[in-house]
Amino acid sequence: MATDNPLILVTNDDGVSAPGLKALVEVMSEIGQVVVVAPDGPQSGMGHAITINNLLRLEKVKVFGSVEGYQCSGTPVDCVKLAVDKILHRRPDLCVSGINHGANSSINILYSGTMSAATEAAIEGIPAIGFSLCDYHFDADFSGAQKYASIIAKNLLKDGLPESTLLNVNIPPLNPDEIKGIRICRQARAKWVEEFSERTDPRGKKYYWLTGEFVNHDHGEDTDEWALKNDYVSVVPVQFDMTAYHAINYINEKWDIDA
Amino acid sequence: MATDNPLILVTNDDGVSAPGLKALVEVMSEIGQVVVVAPDGPQSGMGHAITINNLLRLEKVKVFGSVEGYQCSGTPVDCVKLAVDKILHRRPDLCVSGINHGANSSINILYSGTMSAATEAAIEGIPAIGFSLCDYHFDADFSGAQKYASIIAKNLLKDGLPESTLLNVNIPPLNPDEIKGIRICRQARAKWVEEFSERTDPRGKKYYWLTGEFVNHDHGEDTDEWALKNDYVSVVPVQFDMTAYHAINYINEKWDIDA
Repeated sequence: MATDNPLILVTNDDGVSAPGLKALVEVMSEIGQVVVVAPDGPQSGMGHAITINNLLRLEKVKVFGSVEGYQCSGTPVDCVKLAVDKILHRRPDLCVSGINHGANSSINILYSGTMSAATEAAIEGIPAIGFSLCDYHFDADFSGAQKYASIIAKNLLKDGLPESTLLNVNIPPLNPDEIKGIRICRQARAKWVEEFSERTDPRGKKYYWLTGEFVNHDHGEDTDEWALKNDYVSVVPVQFDMTAYHAINYINEKWDIDA
Repeated sequence: MATDNPLILVTNDDGVSAPGLKALVEVMSEIGQVVVVAPDGPQSGMGHAITINNLLRLEKVKVFGSVEGYQCSGTPVDCVKLAVDKILHRRPDLCVSGINHGANSSINILYSGTMSAATEAAIEGIPAIGFSLCDYHFDADFSGAQKYASIIAKNLLKDGLPESTLLNVNIPPLNPDEIKGIRICRQARAKWVEEFSERTDPRGKKYYWLTGEFVNHDHGEDTDEWALKNDYVSVVPVQFDMTAYHAINYINEKWDIDA
């Protein structure tokens, strides 16, 4: 399936200057020909947003040595769309997003620009992976994430995935030799319990900051949260068909909708 | 399950002044006690974005007569989070989002702020529906959408849905008596084929606008696209567990990851 020198699109949501992006470019440059198209600034929490009411800018950057790189004024999903249509002019053999500074396990997949970029690539029919390190710090140690990003990307290029699926990979914040291996998992049923910090600006007007606590009530040992807590890399295969098939019968049987 | 006078949170992604929001408030006011918390401007295409790098503003508005209303500077998902934590101080009995000006069928669910607001409510454990009219015009006729929004909301309050699911409802742009009824569907396998319009600004710098064409290769008669083409209201039950369960075995069997 993969050629000897696969074309690899690298993107992220932390922006073109993030160390996690540089770490991913290093690894992917050993596997194939890398092109970077990443946001020109932080786009965390942008989910699957696209820019439809504004224009987009795209500029060549020289931050990755000999690797071709571009920064884009839009969202992570915009980056993937622009890369395919205006830069590569073909579908790359692989799209990797990250390495995100911070976890995107469980329900965080929905809010994550990192994962939405990978999802957009998968919608385009491109083998795709989002990588996230469970460490928010700017100067986090990406060596463990790099080791497993290489292993997982090579496997995807070699053995593929079922149609219309991609991977959500999270790496625990440990040294490579402390990580116990890889677990293929389901998304844990967890959520954020929100709390808004209420403040007053210098002109006396109220404003709010989103804060909150991540709460996991799912004790399954087949979840991404379990894997990460037990020092494994979590790999969740993801689909973008959001149909709740089991609910179709429920509605047809229970609801009164012969309208 | 529902009380005699259920508390109904109404939101959207077209902003607090959109006629589609007013149309939905009218219908829901006949069913229960309505509180509106909607973005202060257009937030189409925002997907599941949340505001984490900026503050949020929330202001009371008086645009819905006696109905309590607020506008929020954030995304549709922010509106739902703020409504639950800072305005209602409890989970409402129902959250409805829309009526969107334009279709959110098939893959559009991922890009849609309308659907992401409803999804966020469902994550919070609130029965939730996103409504979209397949007509982009500001002065679209919402009477058909209003009729079916009422029917579907009443059924959800009465008979519920399986846990962790919500509804994506799209209404064809027809008079109420031209609509043939309701179909419970799956999300069609369709996508956008992007094309970026490339232009030059007055200072000679290039910029891009996202355009594209919606392409449906899925000929199934159980899809939302089929229902809408055949003059039915499409109802897709949606889940936010994105795990591709069928891919877990595939990877465990085919991949070489005893790392």
